[in-house]
Parts: sequence; C-alpha cells; structure tokens
Amino acid sequence: MNIRFYNARILEPSEGHSFQVITGELWVKKNEIIYIGDGLDTERVFEKEPAGMILWDREIDAEKNLLLPGFKNAHTHTAMTFLRSYADDLPLQDWLTKQVFPKEALLTADDIYWLSILGIMEYLTSGITSNFDMYFFPETIAKASIDCGFRTMQVSSFNDFTSSIEEMEEIYHKVNEMSDLTGYVPGFHAEYTTSKEHLKQVAALSEKLHAPVYFHNSETALEVEQCKERYGMTPTRLMEELGMFQYGGGGYHCVYFEDEDFEIFRKRNLTAVTNPASNLKLASGIAPIDRFIKEEINLAIGTDGPASNNCLDMFREMFLTTGLAKVREKDAACVGAEEVLYMATTGGAAAMGLNECDSLAEGKKADLIMLDLKQPNMQPENNLVRNIVYSGSKQNVKLTMVNGQILYEDNTFQIGFEPEEIYRKANEIIGRMK
Amino acid sequence: MNIRFYNARILEPSEGHSFQVITGELWVKKNEIIYIGDGLDTERVFEKEPAGMILWDREIDAEKNLLLPGFKNAHTHTAMTFLRSYADDLPLQDWLTKQVFPKEALLTADDIYWLSILGIMEYLTSGITSNFDMYFFPETIAKASIDCGFRTMQVSSFNDFTSSIEEMEEIYHKVNEMSDLTGYVPGFHAEYTTSKEHLKQVAALSEKLHAPVYFHNSETALEVEQCKERYGMTPTRLMEELGMFQYGGGGYHCVYFEDEDFEIFRKRNLTAVTNPASNLKLASGIAPIDRFIKEEINLAIGTDGPASNNCLDMFREMFLTTGLAKVREKDAACVGAEEVLYMATTGGAAAMGLNECDSLAEGKKADLIMLDLKQPNMQPENNLVRNIVYSGSKQNVKLTMVNGQILYEDNTFQIGFEPEEIYRKANEIIGRMK
Repeated sequence: MNIRFYNARILEPSEGHSFQVITGELWVKKNEIIYIGDGLDTERVFEKEPAGMILWDREIDAEKNLLLPGFKNAHTHTAMTFLRSYADDLPLQDWLTKQVFPKEALLTADDIYWLSILGIMEYLTSGITSNFDMYFFPETIAKASIDCGFRTMQVSSFNDFTSSIEEMEEIYHKVNEMSDLTGYVPGFHAEYTTSKEHLKQVAALSEKLHAPVYFHNSETALEVEQCKERYGMTPTRLMEELGMFQYGGGGYHCVYFEDEDFEIFRKRNLTAVTNPASNLKLASGIAPIDRFIKEEINLAIGTDGPASNNCLDMFREMFLTTGLAKVREKDAACVGAEEVLYMATTGGAAAMGLNECDSLAEGKKADLIMLDLKQPNMQPENNLVRNIVYSGSKQNVKLTMVNGQILYEDNTFQIGFEPEEIYRKANEIIGRMK
Repeated sequence: MNIRFYNARILEPSEGHSFQVITGELWVKKNEIIYIGDGLDTERVFEKEPAGMILWDREIDAEKNLLLPGFKNAHTHTAMTFLRSYADDLPLQDWLTKQVFPKEALLTADDIYWLSILGIMEYLTSGITSNFDMYFFPETIAKASIDCGFRTMQVSSFNDFTSSIEEMEEIYHKVNEMSDLTGYVPGFHAEYTTSKEHLKQVAALSEKLHAPVYFHNSETALEVEQCKERYGMTPTRLMEELGMFQYGGGGYHCVYFEDEDFEIFRKRNLTAVTNPASNLKLASGIAPIDRFIKEEINLAIGTDGPASNNCLDMFREMFLTTGLAKVREKDAACVGAEEVLYMATTGGAAAMGLNECDSLAEGKKADLIMLDLKQPNMQPENNLVRNIVYSGSKQNVKLTMVNGQILYEDNTFQIGFEPEEIYRKANEIIGRMK
C-alpha cells in the first residue's frame, strides 16, 4: 500500500533522547517511509521514483493528529493471555507452581497460535508495533505474527527442563528465515532455571552465531541472593564470566543491580528492559531507572506477560517507568517524559535489533501510530510528549501501522481474523483446562 | 429519560466488599434504577407504576457487555486541567511556588468554568460519574457540573491566604441548594497552610452544620514532621484534639500514618482517600493501603488534579492502588481486585455522601457505566472484576450515565458543548498566561 498522511503533526527524533514536532506530511511507499516534510520539498522523492509520481492507495487527512513511531514492547510472553485474571492476588510461588506451570503444560501449538493473536490485537490497541517474545512453540508464534502482519522478535526460553541447545540453533535459523517480520535471538529463561553447563552452551552458541543473548536478570532480591550463594557473584557477573555478552544483549527486569552489574552493562553495551507493572503486581520491587540513565545504559520497556500485569499497555508502562523512578529516588524531577518515550520507541528498537523501525525518518520502515489529540486527556497542548507519557491512553490510539500496513484503525482490526472468533478460542482454551 | 438495558451483564454488590455478576435487564426511570433482574419478574415494577407500563425513550441491547456503578473520583482539583503537562519533572517546591501558584492567581471564574468542563469530559471517558472537588470559585464549579449534567461534590479549600469562615458557610448553603447534582462540605487545604485559629473555626462550623470535614492529610513526610515540630503531634491527632471529626470526614493522600492516626480514623469512621498516581509523580511516597483495610477503615480513590497526575483515569488509579500496595508490603496477595473496585465505587460514594449512587440496586440513582468486554484486554473472561482492575482502560468505556442521563456514548459527548470549543478555550486560557 502507498499511503499519504497530510495535515499531520509528526514526532521526529531530535538531539540526544529528545523529540521535535513538525507539521506536514508523511508518505509511505510499500513498507517504507519515503518522505517527511512540509509538502513543499517533495522533488527529492520524485527524483528517485521511476514514473515520477506515486499512485496513492489512500490519502489520510490526519486532522492535526500526531504521528509517532510505534511502541516496542521489549519483554513479554504474549500467549499467556489465557491466564489473564485467572489466578491473581496469590503469593508468587503459589501462583507460579500451582497455577501457571500446570496450565502451561497443557498448551498445544494450536493454542499458542490463537492466544498470540489475542495478544497482538491488544498490542495494536495500545500502539505497540512489535514485541520481543519469550514463550513456547516459537515457530507457531512467528506464524501467528506473520499471519496478522505484525512484527515479532523472539528470544529462546531455554532452561534445564525444556529443549536443547541444538534445538535453539535450529529454531534460530528457521524463524530468522521465515519472514522480514520475525526474528529470533539466543537466550535462556534465567540463571535459577539454567545450569552452568547449559549457560556455557548458550554462550558458545552466541559466539558461533555472533548473536546477542537476553534473559530474566535480577528480577527479585531472592534470585540475586541465591545466585550469590551458588556462585559467589550476581547473575550479571556470572554471565560476564561465562562470556555471555560478547555480542551484546541484555536483561529483563533488572530490579536488583549492584555497582559492578551497571559497569558490565555499560561496558558491554547491554540493554536493561524494565517491566514496571509486573514488578508491582508480583511484588518484586522497583528498578533503578534513574541510575541506568546516569550510567548511559540503553533502556527499553516491556509489559511482561498478561498473566503478571494483566494488560498489554505501553501507556501504563510509560507512566509507571517515570512515576516509580520518582518515588524510588524521592525526586520528582528525575526520569523525564522524553527519556521515557525514547525508551518505549528507540531504546526498545535498539534492544530488539529493529533500528530500521526505531523512529520516523525517511528510509525507515513504516511502523507508526497516530494518536488522537482531540480527546480531553490530550488537552491543552502544553507539551505533547508529556501529554503522551503522563496522560496517554489506549483510547488515544487512532491508527496502528506495521510495515506499511494499517492493522488497526478507529477501533477496528484489519488482521484477517474476526475479534469474536479470537475471543471464543481463548475462552475455549482456558475452559478446557479447568 | 426512561431507558431499558437488556441482554446485559450487571455487577451487583455481594457480601462484604465483593461483587456478583448477573445476566439480565436494568431499567432506568428518570434518574432512578427501578428494576434489575432476569426480565421475568417485572410485575413488582408494574405494581408501582400508575399506568401499568413505562414508555421507553430508548431500549439498549447491551450485547452482554457489563453494567457497573460509575467510579467516584474522591479527590481532585478538576480545573487544574490548564496546567496539564505545563511544568512537570520539577522538584515539588519549584513546581508549586514557581509554576502552579503564580498561574492560579491569574484564573478568573470564567476560566474555571471551561477548565472544569474539560475535566468533566475526561471523567466521562474514564467511567467516572462524580467527583469530590477542591478548588477556587465553588459556585462556578457547581454551575459547570450542572450545565453538563454531571455530579460534583465539593469541599472547601479554606486556608490562611484565601476567604473567611463566613464565606465558607455562605457557600455551603448556596452550593447545597443549587441542584441535586451538587453538594458542598466544610474543609480546609491542609494543616501547613491553616493556622490553629482558622482550624478551630472550621471545627466550630462543622459542629454547627453537623457536616464532615476533609483536608489534605499526611501527604508527605515533611508535612508530618513539621506538624510535629509545631504542635508535638501528627496532623490527624491535632485535628482530633481540635474536635474536627465530630461529624466524620477524612483525609486526602494519607501516605504517612502512625498507629494513633489509624486508631483515630477507625474510631471516628473517617475515610482515607488515596491518590496513588499523584503520590508517584510528586515523589511523595506509597500509602499504607493494606493496613487501612486491616483496620477496617473506609477507603476511596482519587486522581488528584490533572497537573499532578496528569490524567484523570480511574483505571490507572485502581491498578496503582493494588500494585503499589503489593510492592510496598512485599506481598503479591495483598489488596485484592474486589477491594479496589469497592473503593472506586462504594467506598468513594460513602466518602462523598453519595450513598444513593454507590451501587447498582433498585431504588438507587442511575449513575452507571457500560464497559465493552469485547476488547482484547477483557478476554478471556476468567474473572470480570480482575479484568477491570488489572487490565481495564478508558478504551473499554462504552457509555457513561449520570443521574439517568447518558453523557458519553461510543466516544461521543452529550453534554451540550462541542469538544473543539472546550479545547480551544483551554488552550486560550493557558496561552494568555504565558
């Protein structure tokens, strides 16, 4: 599709982690942004176009609403939608061992397909254009994403109880070859579920593939304490010693960090993916976001899975990222709105290897959203970025485009599935397990 | 208007602070709920109706969506909409003294009228059907609310720098006589802005009017510390000693409470109104919600004003109320979803003197909302209450009814004003001040 947005406000990257808003047009040809500007300097586009002009499939009057890069959900377990609100308000260990694990053991690949699509639908309502997923049946997850036209990066959930390193390597190649919309990197669940021997295998595979590694890292105080008992060092230090970070990567959660952990993350250019809603709901703690910023470590934001959140909403996560930092540091001035919006877009894209989709600029892929500013929570327009981060809501998402395709517009999904069918499937799956 | 909802799911009060969901019909005659049931036992309604039947202005197929009582926003400064995103990310004192106070001094009654309507519009998008407001020009605030058909209780913002106790009494009578939609109770801004002499005047007025008193109480650690320096006791104890609580009332924020404060709140049957988003954004702290519940003290939830939040969204506040309690107590099992929904509806209504609007039951006033369950964040339907509290969003609000009138439906306002006009006014007001 070739789509011309006009009469738009457009959020462009500016210096450092800041943004600027221009008024004008944004043109999408197939899956690429080919023009951003005031509409008066379009010759440079036509110079490149053989026929000298473009046939528009649609011309959309943005009515002064705001175009911005889609949000990147940098850590999630999408297909856990089936357990949303199933067993909340339980102590963490009971929740995991008595509810989550037994139910997960019953999941089929077909279940994962439908449950992933349910999650993708929710992403679209929240302006999320790609996710970084860790769950079972990665090829099925990739197929669900491709079938919807959505963009999904995946990371292995390797641990002592599932799969093998050979399987990880095989899936790495398969998923990376499936489509431009999907990708896969090595990883493992966490230090406490993965033996040293297995960890060494992951490090070796990363070395072989020249690929980054991601895992749940220092999510709870107990996890760090037990790792220190086992190995005399933090999870981050352990992985560094095992050579896990030769090709970058990062950690999910990163709540309990020590000085040396920050140092390793900075030195290895790793990303800390924060999951603030999950960290509240599971009573894990509050991550040291302000310190990560001061250490100039890349940050990204994830929802975690819908069973531990329970929603998939980047607006909630953005508010929490700054709000929790402020109360943690007792400093209302720390972690400003632009930093947070940067994490939710460019920072996330960097973590996920999606630099081609990280901002609105000519040559970038068209992963973008339009926010309805003519809603009371976006008025007055004292500061658009702060309005988004502190006041934004799913209700403001007017349009979500992934890879040049409009997948959600005016509360309607264009993903090739009827919502009612997806809801019925999800209810059937959990119904069958009860 | 007489409105029949059919094919609905209806959230009814159950034992204690819990709820149950029935499927059936809900009938509204003028401003009252006259029937809730399966539609087969309606004779008892017709027995009461002189003509034996009701002429419906509308019959609404709820399509199995959920009717529930509207949310009560139990502490706010609505007209601060003009300062939304104006000066965030500043230390609290700078924000207050350099930005908020100088701008507030420029507000006219006419400004307050338009800025209040902007806030009311946002309340409607979030399923909020009444607010407990503290701000300048109370008669104007009441007029804005009445003109929209919205329900607003107000509390005096009395302090050493504005108004007099005589004026508070005069306004009390005026606003309480204006309309069934509006009410007013005595109050004062906070201990640190109100001299002992003035506090005694408020206590005497409460005694004279047999009316409860509300104020900002123990919002920050510094506030409590300074009160103890001044009087050798906490703000709660000071007010108790001054006889402030003879007719009930309560406090806004209530973050820093000591054993004796809980005891006074319980003994006097006071309400603690929590404002979690504001407490994060201004780095104030996390309120001891779990303790309040264990002490059986009534709890309510408020957004605080839009300059310190920055949005007016009960879904965000509900998630924060439970999420922050869980991380504070290091207990994922504390402060369950039903407790939180109770606070946001019945608990808030109790605080605001709105027991007639606190739940869906025959004879209650029709302050209710319909949530769209056919959205991905509400699926599967493992538990409707948990879905609302942990996963709900403004996007789910399909209809908001106040006092029997539909004021918001399918993203359209029915308040007698064009949204664009209200947005233009709000931008003009802050533009004039720059």
